[in-house]
Amino acid sequence: MSSIFTKIINGDIPSYKIAEDNQHYAFLDINPLVKGHTLVIPKIEEDYIFDLSDAQIAALHIFAKKVAVGIKKVIPCKRVGSLVIGTEVPHAHIHLIPFEEEAVFNITRPKLNINPDEMAEIAFKISQAI
Amino acid sequence: MSSIFTKIINGDIPSYKIAEDNQHYAFLDINPLVKGHTLVIPKIEEDYIFDLSDAQIAALHIFAKKVAVGIKKVIPCKRVGSLVIGTEVPHAHIHLIPFEEEAVFNITRPKLNINPDEMAEIAFKISQAI
Repeated sequence: MSSIFTKIINGDIPSYKIAEDNQHYAFLDINPLVKGHTLVIPKIEEDYIFDLSDAQIAALHIFAKKVAVGIKKVIPCKRVGSLVIGTEVPHAHIHLIPFEEEAVFNITRPKLNINPDEMAEIAFKISQAI
Repeated sequence: MSSIFTKIINGDIPSYKIAEDNQHYAFLDINPLVKGHTLVIPKIEEDYIFDLSDAQIAALHIFAKKVAVGIKKVIPCKRVGSLVIGTEVPHAHIHLIPFEEEAVFNITRPKLNINPDEMAEIAFKISQAI
């Protein structure tokens, strides 16, 4: 069965898409810790990120860097941090989290509820900045 | 002035070293969230990780993967997660955090105080597993 992320890549589930290439996809986290919180995933359905090959790990992080640079141009922040836990969905993913205060990395904080129009606007602006 | 991490790489400040190659260094975090909490750094003194070149980003994450695989062989855990905030020290670094429970990624939790003998033993075992 396809992971929820594969369904997002295939367009079977809608997403606020930010960027895509042959091997990767980036979209806004629907339960964001902050505005601009983005997920970067490989298209290959690998559960554990460290089971990716060296070439896949390298390509994924080069793609994530491009996305992070775009996020920083659009979202006011000190910098963009990253987080990989990976147990939420069995498909490797990197959280890119723009932040002013390090406390946003407390993942037990309540998630933001951002309205769909604003999510679409954020995704569009970041996609244009990449 | 050299960053504290450059001093660690150069041996001017002691560390519980786990692995090293020409471009990278890995050692136990002295203020760990969990046993086996490791920092992976490039030897080049770049502050913001996304200012590294594509080649440097790729090499750093391939090295981090090797270290993560070693950590998982030694520390009982569901998997090894990663975190980059980067504002603690102005020298890019990846936290590798073996975990059973996702709650350990609450970075505001109190840090563990592990005695030096146990830190040395953990570092040795992981270094042997890489």
